Amino acid sequence: MSTLPPGLAELMGKPVNDIDTPALVIDLDAMKRNLARMAEFAKKHNIRWRPHAKLHKSVALAKMQIKAGAVGVCVQKTAEAEVMVAGGVYNVYISNEVIAPAKLARVALLAQKVAAHGGQLAIAADSPEGVIRLAQAMNEARAGNGVGTVIDVFVEIDVGQGRCGVEPGSAAVTLALEIRKHPALRFAGLQAYHGKAQHLRSVQDRRDAIAKAVDAVVHTRQLIETQGVVPGLVTGAGTGSFVLEAASGVYGELQAGSFMFMDADYALNERDPAQLQFEHALFVKTQVISTHSGHAVCDAGHKSHAIDSGMPLVHAFDAESELEYFNGGDEHGILRPAAGSKRVPGLGRMLWLIPGHCDPTVNLHDVMIGVTGGLRSGTVQRIYRVDARGAMT
Amino acid sequence: MSTLPPGLAELMGKPVNDIDTPALVIDLDAMKRNLARMAEFAKKHNIRWRPHAKLHKSVALAKMQIKAGAVGVCVQKTAEAEVMVAGGVYNVYISNEVIAPAKLARVALLAQKVAAHGGQLAIAADSPEGVIRLAQAMNEARAGNGVGTVIDVFVEIDVGQGRCGVEPGSAAVTLALEIRKHPALRFAGLQAYHGKAQHLRSVQDRRDAIAKAVDAVVHTRQLIETQGVVPGLVTGAGTGSFVLEAASGVYGELQAGSFMFMDADYALNERDPAQLQFEHALFVKTQVISTHSGHAVCDAGHKSHAIDSGMPLVHAFDAESELEYFNGGDEHGILRPAAGSKRVPGLGRMLWLIPGHCDPTVNLHDVMIGVTGGLRSGTVQRIYRVDARGAMT
Repeated sequence: MSTLPPGLAELMGKPVNDIDTPALVIDLDAMKRNLARMAEFAKKHNIRWRPHAKLHKSVALAKMQIKAGAVGVCVQKTAEAEVMVAGGVYNVYISNEVIAPAKLARVALLAQKVAAHGGQLAIAADSPEGVIRLAQAMNEARAGNGVGTVIDVFVEIDVGQGRCGVEPGSAAVTLALEIRKHPALRFAGLQAYHGKAQHLRSVQDRRDAIAKAVDAVVHTRQLIETQGVVPGLVTGAGTGSFVLEAASGVYGELQAGSFMFMDADYALNERDPAQLQFEHALFVKTQVISTHSGHAVCDAGHKSHAIDSGMPLVHAFDAESELEYFNGGDEHGILRPAAGSKRVPGLGRMLWLIPGHCDPTVNLHDVMIGVTGGLRSGTVQRIYRVDARGAMT
Repeated sequence: MSTLPPGLAELMGKPVNDIDTPALVIDLDAMKRNLARMAEFAKKHNIRWRPHAKLHKSVALAKMQIKAGAVGVCVQKTAEAEVMVAGGVYNVYISNEVIAPAKLARVALLAQKVAAHGGQLAIAADSPEGVIRLAQAMNEARAGNGVGTVIDVFVEIDVGQGRCGVEPGSAAVTLALEIRKHPALRFAGLQAYHGKAQHLRSVQDRRDAIAKAVDAVVHTRQLIETQGVVPGLVTGAGTGSFVLEAASGVYGELQAGSFMFMDADYALNERDPAQLQFEHALFVKTQVISTHSGHAVCDAGHKSHAIDSGMPLVHAFDAESELEYFNGGDEHGILRPAAGSKRVPGLGRMLWLIPGHCDPTVNLHDVMIGVTGGLRSGTVQRIYRVDARGAMT
């Protein structure tokens, strides 16, 4: 986890120009401004903040977030949780369903491990079968080594994403009661993340979506309370909407993570004056390897950046050099001058792409190269390993 | 390169059921049938065959192909070539433009290394500047350690892809003559790969596209010969069209690689009776983690399989269990019963996805788990490391 791939350590302190392409580069100045803005927001609104580490997949960045005030991190996979815990992050929430007995055995051992460090493991569930299997795994771990631990379990409700999660209302209550039957499980509250709302383009649509999510949460909490059960924490909210969840008074924890790097896709949302603004801080450095009369070809294709949320934007240092990126396959990007510009960039010209979606882009790389002093004349200050790259199970 | 990630070695000899999800699995029986079919074709048509290793990124599979009759492998990146050479594959063709001086220095050292093992390195070029930089790097390597080597250089012509490559005709001749000025470079022929033709849906469109490519190649070769230059080898052709290039009489080397695994995308092409048929041999094993009235959610999203060429197909063992896959984000897939089927698969149900595009799917994984005896009752026979995963520069 701590050693760098060969050749990379030599980059430390070198000018940004020395970074060969394609490479994933963090503008550390921009990232730290983003982090400070989020930390200040959470502090001012007195709300817990547990950023999603599926963005950066890095133990060092998780620790930087915790130092800035985060209570821990969220992850989506057992294997990601293992990487975080191995690196010394002991408050980890697997905000996803885990069903496979082999994985649940690993989850139970992780719960013991973080408890030994004074931390806490949490997980989401959306089925009685999932809860029962989790309890079995916790009991088996206890029987195996005599260590008794309690894992926090959030009931996931579907607040509009249409993916995982039970329907808000009575199904969630049933699940909360099932969790409370098992001494090794603690009902911790509701997972109510509205992923789709993050990328609704209009402000009004995003506000409507989160208002509906809040209604569903409030209704479900009331039903849980009528059973005499403490409804616990409500956790959710992403970079595109968290100001709305925070203002609801019912969400107690924000999971927003993307604000650190800012996907190009978020730039396409209509700007909500109520929402915090963040800067793009993650770039794929690339260079032109082939030029033609109407287009140039660069050495970064979709093996270097994820295209599930659209093509990357080309960062333009001035209006005359604006370029549009077209898919050129795994290893190539096609660049054409944008409207108002005519220049095809020359052979060897360095360009900076803003990925459409940062999480899966990071997953394609072994390291992120941290630069201070800007993309043109900065220097390499730190290299971050993508510790949980490829952590799938 | 030889050690496996923890926990994987224990899978050897185990039933396919023991493979946790998501995981990349090769049906070795199908893959070996595909390989035998291709090897037989090349032998029968007496044509060189240098499969693209950007498919599998595995030294062991490259060696298996060479054992079956391939003359070596193609790669797209210097870093991929380094991995192949380090693993003992000494006939490597970087079928792409390399411009960065730092990379060209590595290329020159690789050329020396393979020569020391009796092998040969080759590279493509599409600009005089690229050729001059390559010659400089070769000369500097010779000056540095006194070892003189010659690298093969193919002139890339654009036969319809609209990406890299000079226009067929005089520009290619100019480049061939430029290459011949440099003693460390040998003009080896033409790179004439038509990537777009592979995925044209109609048989007639594919035939027309390759006919045009062949015309461009013939014309360019004639111009080269009028300069008294031996026109060398013509290399190109992918899995969707190679029978056509082989029949042209002008292509001397086939680069088809995908036939080993077969992308789901190729299944959408109208079947050409003249084209060889191959079986899907690469799968993402996944399982259902959440169920709902109209859909189920599995644990394989686009972090497990590339979606640049569309969503994966769900392998159906029988018509009643046919499912359609919808994008559920990085870590989730949404499954809905296909027309004619009504069953939503249950919690924990194992499913097999056929990736839309195998090359970038392989790049997401550290290993490929090789199974014999079928996906239902087979056993794990071999685990292949994705040696060149993330080899980007």
